[in-house]
Formats: sequence, C-alpha cells, structure tokens
Amino acid sequence: MSTTTAKAVIILIEDEAILRLDLDEVLEGAGFVLISLHNATTAIGEIEKDWTRFGGLITDIDLGNGPSGWDVARRARELCPSLPVVYMSGASAADWAAQGVPKSIMLTKPFAPAQLITAISTLMNEAPIPGDS
Amino acid sequence: MSTTTAKAVIILIEDEAILRLDLDEVLEGAGFVLISLHNATTAIGEIEKDWTRFGGLITDIDLGNGPSGWDVARRARELCPSLPVVYMSGASAADWAAQGVPKSIMLTKPFAPAQLITAISTLMNEAPIPGDS
Amino acid sequence: MSTTTAKAVIILIEDEAILRLDLDEVLEGAGFVLISLHNATTAIGEIEKDWTRFGGLITDIDLGNGPSGWDVARRARELCPSLPVVYMSGASAADWAAQGVPKSIMLTKPFAPAQLITAISTLMNEAPIPGDS
Amino acid sequence: MSTTTAKAVIILIEDEAILRLDLDEVLEGAGFVLISLHNATTAIGEIEKDWTRFGGLITDIDLGNGPSGWDVARRARELCPSLPVVYMSGASAADWAAQGVPKSIMLTKPFAPAQLITAISTLMNEAPIPGDS
Amino acid sequence: MSTTTAKAVIILIEDEAILRLDLDEVLEGAGFVLISLHNATTAIGEIEKDWTRFGGLITDIDLGNGPSGWDVARRARELCPSLPVVYMSGASAADWAAQGVPKSIMLTKPFAPAQLITAISTLMNEAPIPGDS
Amino acid sequence: MSTTTAKAVIILIEDEAILRLDLDEVLEGAGFVLISLHNATTAIGEIEKDWTRFGGLITDIDLGNGPSGWDVARRARELCPSLPVVYMSGASAADWAAQGVPKSIMLTKPFAPAQLITAISTLMNEAPIPGDS
Repeated sequence: MSTTTAKAVIILIEDEAILRLDLDEVLEGAGFVLISLHNATTAIGEIEKDWTRFGGLITDIDLGNGPSGWDVARRARELCPSLPVVYMSGASAADWAAQGVPKSIMLTKPFAPAQLITAISTLMNEAPIPGDS
Repeated sequence: MSTTTAKAVIILIEDEAILRLDLDEVLEGAGFVLISLHNATTAIGEIEKDWTRFGGLITDIDLGNGPSGWDVARRARELCPSLPVVYMSGASAADWAAQGVPKSIMLTKPFAPAQLITAISTLMNEAPIPGDS
Repeated sequence: MSTTTAKAVIILIEDEAILRLDLDEVLEGAGFVLISLHNATTAIGEIEKDWTRFGGLITDIDLGNGPSGWDVARRARELCPSLPVVYMSGASAADWAAQGVPKSIMLTKPFAPAQLITAISTLMNEAPIPGDS
Repeated sequence: MSTTTAKAVIILIEDEAILRLDLDEVLEGAGFVLISLHNATTAIGEIEKDWTRFGGLITDIDLGNGPSGWDVARRARELCPSLPVVYMSGASAADWAAQGVPKSIMLTKPFAPAQLITAISTLMNEAPIPGDS
Repeated sequence: MSTTTAKAVIILIEDEAILRLDLDEVLEGAGFVLISLHNATTAIGEIEKDWTRFGGLITDIDLGNGPSGWDVARRARELCPSLPVVYMSGASAADWAAQGVPKSIMLTKPFAPAQLITAISTLMNEAPIPGDS
Repeated sequence: MSTTTAKAVIILIEDEAILRLDLDEVLEGAGFVLISLHNATTAIGEIEKDWTRFGGLITDIDLGNGPSGWDVARRARELCPSLPVVYMSGASAADWAAQGVPKSIMLTKPFAPAQLITAISTLMNEAPIPGDS
C-alpha cells in the first residue's frame, strides 16, 4: 500500500518562500501530496533516502549556493530513470535545451497555475506503469 | 443540438460507492456531465443503447462478477472506434499493455484528481472531429 | 519584466457575451490574465499593435461580419509563428482540418471548461522557449 | 479492392521537372505509387475528380501562376479531412505556421530523401483507419 | 552480448508465403534480423520460449485456424509489456481500435514498404531502454 | 544558399573506425551530407566554429579520453537549442534518462540502420523552421 501511495506524491523545490506557498496551495488544491523543500541539498538527500515515495519532481533552477535544479533532476533520474520532471524558471529557461533531462517540461516564469498542473499531470499520466519496463 | 451536446458527457464505471462519489464530484467540478454507474453490464447496456451520447469513457478494471473494465472498453470501441478511454486501477494496472485499447490512458491508483481531469481532457481534445474520418 | 509577464496573458475572442463571461471566469480561475474581446477586427488590431504581450490565443470561429477566427489565427501566426492557438466552434469545427493552423487544437462546442484549460495549457507548455528557435 | 489499393497512392505536385524526377525515383523506390504533377490546377482537378484514390499529398509551395501548394492542401482537406499532407519549400517554409493545415509536415529545402520518406510514412501510419471516425 | 543483440531482432508472422518473402526482403534490406513465421501457434511458442530475443513484433491479423494476430500480440505483451507491435491487415484493420494493444501501429494493406520500416523503427526508437522502467 | 544547404548536413561522431564507415554509408545512402569525426574535441571545435552548417548531430557516447557524447550534445545545444540529437550506445544507454538532452533519441546498440535513419529524420522533420522561434 505504501509503495503505490507514493505515486501521487510530488517533491517540490523552490527557494522563494512566498512562491513556494503559492505552489503548495495550487498543487494540493489539485489533489497532490507534497514534500515541499527550499533547498537542493535537502532535496537530493530525500531522493537518495527513498525515491520510491515520489511520483514526480517539480523544481526551480536557481537555488542559491549549492546544487541547481538541473543537478537535482539529474541525480533523481540516475536513481529513477522514468521520474516525471517539471522545471520552473525565468532567467534560466533558455538553458533547458542543453541542461534539461529527456521527457521533461520547462515552464517559463511567470506561468499560470493551470500550466503547472497540466504539465505534471501529463508527465505522470505518460510515465511507465511499474513492471512495464 | 442533442447530438453535439453529447460530446461533453462522460460515462463513468466504478463499483466502490465512496470512490465513485468522489470521482463524480471531481468530474462535475471540471464541467463534465456524467452518467455514473457501478456495474459493467449496465454500462455495456447504456453504450449499446446509444453510444452517440458519450464523449468519453472512464472505467475501473475490477468490477466484481461479470465483465471487467477491459471488456467495457473493447465493446465501446467496437461501436465507436474513436471514443476516448481512461482506465483506473491499482492491482490491474500492470495488465494495461496487454489488455488496454490503443490511444487509452491507464491511471494507477491512487492518483490525484488533476491527473484524471488532464487524462480525459487530453484524449477528448485529440479525438477526431465528427466528419474528420 | 513586462516582456516575460506577457507569457501568461491570453487573448480571447468570443462574440456571444454570456459565453465570453463564462470563459473569462474559467480562464481567470485557472490563473491566466485575459484580454477578452468580442470582435475579430479589434483582436487583429491588438495583435498587430504588440503581439509580444500574448502567450496564447483562444478564438471562436463565427464572429459575425468581418474576419473569422480562422483569419485572426492566421494573422497572429504571421507575426508570431509559435503562438499557441485554440479554436472553439460548433458548426465550423468540421472545417478545422482545412482552415486551422498547424499545432492548434479545435474544441467542438459544447465542451467542458477543463478541456479548454487543458488545451491551452498543453500548447503553452510545448511552445518554444524564447531563444530556442 | 480498388478502394483499399488507393491507400498507398500519393499525389505529388512539383513544378521543377528535374526535382520532380528525383522525387519520383525516391518515392517509387520506397514502394509508393505516384500520380506526379507539375501544376496546381491539374492537381486540384484530379483531387476533385476522385480523392479516394489518394493516401497522401506531397506538394511544393511556389507553383508559378495560379494556386499555390497552400491552396492545393486546403482544397484536398475540404474533401478529405484526414489526408496526410507534406509541404516542401525553401523560401516559403517560414509561412507554414500561418498557411499550413493541421497535422502536416513542412520540409525545408534542401532535405535528404530519407526525410521525405519518413515524413509521409509517419503521417500515413497515423492517419485514421477507414471507419475510425 | 547475446542479450543486447536481441534488440534488433524482429518476429514476423504472416501466413501468405509470397507476401512473407516480400516482407522478409524489405525488413532485411533495412537491416533487421528476422524470425519469420507463418503460424500464430508457433509464434506464441517462440515468444514463450524466450521473448528477450525480440526487439519488435510484426503480425498479420487473419492467420487461418487458431489464434489471430490480436492474440499473438496480447500474449507477447503479457510477457514483455513494452514490446513494439505493428499489425498488418486489410479486412480487419477497422477492428484495431477495439482489439489492438496500446502504443501499437495498424498498417492497412496494401501499404508501401517504407511505411512498415518507419512504423517498426519509430516504435523501437521510443521503446524504454532496459533499466528505464 | 549556403545557409539553407546546411540543413541536410549531419555531424557524426563515432570512434570505432569500422562502425563509422558503416554509418557513413547508411547515412549517405539515405541522402545526408556528412561531417564524420572520430573525436569529441574535434567535433566540439567544428560546432563552435560554425554550428549553422549542421541540421543534426549523431554521436556515440563513450569516445575514449576527453569529452563524451553527452558533453558534445550539451555544448551543441548551448549554441543551437533546437539541434536534433541522436545518441548511439551499448553500455551507456541506461544513462540517457539522466544525461541526455530534451527531445533527443537514444539508440541502443546494436540497432538496425533503418532505426538510425528514422530517428534522425523524425527529429529533423520536427525541428523548428528558421524564424519560427
């Protein structure tokens, strides 16, 4: 039960507190369970501790000192190659074609909440079903 | 008028009453009109009686005795080859690659309500326009 | 700032006042900023004045005398080739395959609000990132 | 029998004689049967006479005086909304986003023969099956 | 080495001898290694014996007495959920929407050899990489 | 003229001489013009010198000492965000989900020549048209 429950849990990384609260509200309103973090190092730690909890990753790119959102997504994909990934950025959006992972979506800030919900839902709906390798 | 109205009507089959009420609320909140049923045999009867009413089909897989969700979808597609189909399941999700119909979406339970709305909306938006055979 | 802000602004053209109010409410509820118009000539004027404001176009087809929704979309695409375009129509939906622009979506009326939100969000999420020509 | 045979027949419109001969060779080498024309008016006449013969349309854009490739494709799609369409052009490729029909492919000249074969084959493989409206 | 080699091997089932020879020539000319069979029961036996050999399945639908191509594909997908599947048929093509498996392609006979090569190559190129579950 | 000619030129990087000759033959047989290299550093130099020559990039991953194929693709995408990218590998294919760039294709060795032709052609056919940013 706990394994399948993990499928609707999303890990969110955003270092701007106000924006993170907004995103929490939007995603929880859409029915997702969130692990909401403001720091890439903590996020990588959570993913390494147990990535099977997560059905999707949503991350800002520029996260202050330390790893970027590009780094978080690459580390997550090393452990879970089919994990749905949505990036959010303003200034760094143009780097997605070089720094993003395959089958990810880049949302250029500002975006409407519905774009985020549609992005992560679409990727989660397309992700391979466990056992369908 | 009645024919085109049918386009936003969805037939939903789910045998767990509590879950069906939740799904009704989610789908009606998104603006869909629902024919909501708990039994595959009744669903097949409704489809055979007049499938032109329906713009999409959402079905659970394991429906107790009698036909399964796989059976309902196959029968519906025999009558309406372009009908959008979304399956929902926990234990039976792994069988989708063998038992599902083409251009359908499998949602593994539990899923967020937004995933269901995105799944059925995406398929309905891609469905052929009447006359565009 | 004003340039990037423009990305979540949608230009909507619908000549039925009641329906336009409904669409305004649906789209604003999903977090989009709207320029909402009832007339194709005005819409073309707004697009020609500064198309960089708009992240997407949603248009009815039959707009009374003057240009149609097909005309509005073609003019917009001449200026901004990657602009997301969603058409809404009842009687004219069957003409989409001949009159629509590439990578657009046709919603046949009546449709559920969620279909419109999913349609425009999906196209905006797929649109090229500025600089990614 | 004659109806289903029509599915692998392609109508090709290209006004440069040398290039048309090259394209004929490439497409026939890939196993397609061709109706190869150098004139848009003749092409429209053939399509109007019996469009059920054709499984795909490949057209140059700038065809001298008279209708353009854009016009040929629109007329064909009026009669057969699901007809696969591939455009080929140099100078006019940039107009595709405004002038092309939905679900078509634009090949910018020069292109490799394999790109043309892949383009028309992909569209034909995705085209609705007769009866799958 | 033998495991990875299996990726470019295709199992083909076609009961018309002349047509099977043609298909063998087309597919081998495109660089595929073939296990070419005329009987569904034999094909199912080969798949059950060791499905890891195969990178794709191409099957006719109407195969005389015994299992059909629909049955072969369902059995193969039970064992290997991500196996690329291409169906070929004339009379039975219209049943694909109800009887086909997800993410498969239906080629309506007659088709050009390039359509078959493009169909199986596209599906094989999209198939999950081993380990990418 | 020289600019548009560049569209059908592919840069290929493969350090195994025999295999590179095979790939040259396959790609030239499909009508592509090749810049064929065995070294990542040289490839990056060619791309930095004038990336507008290239319509696509095909690269092996493990290229001996120095940069890998992952590095070549990232550098190319920094300069040309829409460049089609195809990776070829045996042992490193499983790393694609973490190390590949968006909208790229991974071919697991061994693959059939037709898979390579279909992969690069499909990506080139989908690439944005110049001016369609």
